[in-house]
Amino acid sequence: MATPVTDSVRALTNEEIFAAHEGGKLSIASARPLENMRDLSLAYTPGVATVCQAIAADPAVARTHTGIGDTVAIISDGSAVLGLGDIGPQASLPVMEGKAQLFSSFAGLKAVPLVLNIREVDELVDTIAALAPSFGGINLEDISAPRCFEVERKLIERLDIPVMHDDQHGTAVVILAALRNALTLVEKDIAGLRIVISGAGAAGVAAVDMLHNAGARDIVVLDSRGVISTDRQDLAPVKQDLAARTNPRGVTGGINEAFTGADTFIGVSGGNIGEEALQLMAPEPILFTLANPTPEIDPELSRRYGAIVATGRSDLPNQINNVLAFPGIFHGALAAEATAITPEMKLAAATAIAEIAAEDLEPGRIVPSPLDPRVAPAVSAAVQAAAQG
Amino acid sequence: MATPVTDSVRALTNEEIFAAHEGGKLSIASARPLENMRDLSLAYTPGVATVCQAIAADPAVARTHTGIGDTVAIISDGSAVLGLGDIGPQASLPVMEGKAQLFSSFAGLKAVPLVLNIREVDELVDTIAALAPSFGGINLEDISAPRCFEVERKLIERLDIPVMHDDQHGTAVVILAALRNALTLVEKDIAGLRIVISGAGAAGVAAVDMLHNAGARDIVVLDSRGVISTDRQDLAPVKQDLAARTNPRGVTGGINEAFTGADTFIGVSGGNIGEEALQLMAPEPILFTLANPTPEIDPELSRRYGAIVATGRSDLPNQINNVLAFPGIFHGALAAEATAITPEMKLAAATAIAEIAAEDLEPGRIVPSPLDPRVAPAVSAAVQAAAQG
Repeated sequence: MATPVTDSVRALTNEEIFAAHEGGKLSIASARPLENMRDLSLAYTPGVATVCQAIAADPAVARTHTGIGDTVAIISDGSAVLGLGDIGPQASLPVMEGKAQLFSSFAGLKAVPLVLNIREVDELVDTIAALAPSFGGINLEDISAPRCFEVERKLIERLDIPVMHDDQHGTAVVILAALRNALTLVEKDIAGLRIVISGAGAAGVAAVDMLHNAGARDIVVLDSRGVISTDRQDLAPVKQDLAARTNPRGVTGGINEAFTGADTFIGVSGGNIGEEALQLMAPEPILFTLANPTPEIDPELSRRYGAIVATGRSDLPNQINNVLAFPGIFHGALAAEATAITPEMKLAAATAIAEIAAEDLEPGRIVPSPLDPRVAPAVSAAVQAAAQG
Repeated sequence: MATPVTDSVRALTNEEIFAAHEGGKLSIASARPLENMRDLSLAYTPGVATVCQAIAADPAVARTHTGIGDTVAIISDGSAVLGLGDIGPQASLPVMEGKAQLFSSFAGLKAVPLVLNIREVDELVDTIAALAPSFGGINLEDISAPRCFEVERKLIERLDIPVMHDDQHGTAVVILAALRNALTLVEKDIAGLRIVISGAGAAGVAAVDMLHNAGARDIVVLDSRGVISTDRQDLAPVKQDLAARTNPRGVTGGINEAFTGADTFIGVSGGNIGEEALQLMAPEPILFTLANPTPEIDPELSRRYGAIVATGRSDLPNQINNVLAFPGIFHGALAAEATAITPEMKLAAATAIAEIAAEDLEPGRIVPSPLDPRVAPAVSAAVQAAAQG
């Protein structure tokens, strides 16, 4: 994980990293002091029974008088963790704790990291559905594709609380926000844009949907074998769906065919794009190379060819970081008592993020800083408005 | 839940109770500030990957560098909640949050309330086992008998972290602690004691085991149909087991037959014991009437007949409250990195609780106050020693 040294993030030492993780990264404690028998009698027996009975009589009381009104579960099976891949549930726990820190720090939400040592789709769905009464919303995390699609879809069908796989939608929301501002700068319109997405996993598939919902019409998706098209005979069901929904010009071939005349490249896959492909792009290309720590296009090449460049890295300009999206999205969904996170709510989140950066728009500043305190409240407000529609 | 007014606990108003529950009773937050890109890079990407990889290489790192070293799940299906019965998972959540407050306030442990909307034993076991990598220990709570016995047994077999159904063992530990001090006062020995237990549910079955492990030999258990004996043809498997393990004198009949010559009554069932039965007991009887809010024996009658009286109520002397046990038991088990909570650990917990009250022993003070700050550390130390012993 060697990250280049910059002013804001000089090289992290292992010692510092382990110190920041010692004993875990969350505090869980009583929200009120329990100092005398009266405190105990109010919070526990006999007082608690009054609230239990009130919820049994009217489930809406749970939202106001238990934690569920602002508590999110962060659930993973540890199968697709960061760039580390399948490291299993317990090794993924630091990521889930980190995410819970972000939920609390940026949106004031309570979040509980839960890692599951099961893998089968229906088992994951049943287990998560069984847990659902404990939470106001469910953030799925680092579950490998294509299982993540089915797990999310089945949970959304089954539960009446917001469920979102952040690797899909959080990323897609921030990509759209960044793209909108990039398009303003290069004066292009999304409807006429030729977009190449490299990667047909969680983020790639969600980006296709998000961009379609935002008006994009010409998206070509690349996987490791080349352009995804209806001509391909080797496609799994998720990619067959993609082939049917994308690639309206029927492009076939590989990287060069996809890049010819493209206005925008969005890399969410890893892999390596060389200079030749960049030379085939339309004027003023937008390059989002989100693989971490090694972007799909060498940063030096991106700078040379791209009109606007974004990456997933904190040490380069325009970091596409889904912390811009998920705290506010869940905050807004919970505040609105939404039963699901709809495409409209995600579009509203992207617009809110884009608008904050648009106040001060430059090629090196198309998204707000992950630390910008205006973002989560603005996203939450936009999501609430969209939810209440 | 009308509790008689006393100095320490005057009547609780609904307004106060709901105010004490507003927004839930737990805070969950980042344990360290996330104020700049460096904090973010240490706690989340890219720094977190270093800790993930360390855990993948050596699972022991999870105990020191995630929360699991001091985090307990409090898990219920809401099927046997307080005296309210089967009110379902979400209505039971305030109890689980209250319990989490007690874990944090008395033992400094992090505890996560999880309520499950499933009921079948194997489904509960599979779901809880799937969650286990997220926690250092599992406190089962308010699961109805006889399912609670099987759920706990199967989880203990399957998992290598401490699992304890508190309604069984927490209660039994405190009963034994109280009984030991009561026996000191009346100068009787547990080995020769005739004990009647009313209730063959979670607490009754665990109390039988605990008292046997502590040297009791003559226990007679009553259920709603009378004395449990091998003569009974109507017994479910758990009660058949009880019949085989208890009642060495082959008592048959009802309350009066059970009480004849008995030294000790332990009520964990509700129900009502009249004056006639008390007149049949041996001299200086010990009466533990733990049903809440209505003890099995009228408090006035208990005072008249009992040499030592304890109840489950906070407004009467000698409250048998399992908050004396569970925070320290889990604290000790986690600190010792125990893979289970053994009978020896539970006996050590009872001894530690009894010893604190023994420093200042009186008939009205056979157990420490639930608020006594010496208890949890002493229980933890004793449990650790027993675990390592």
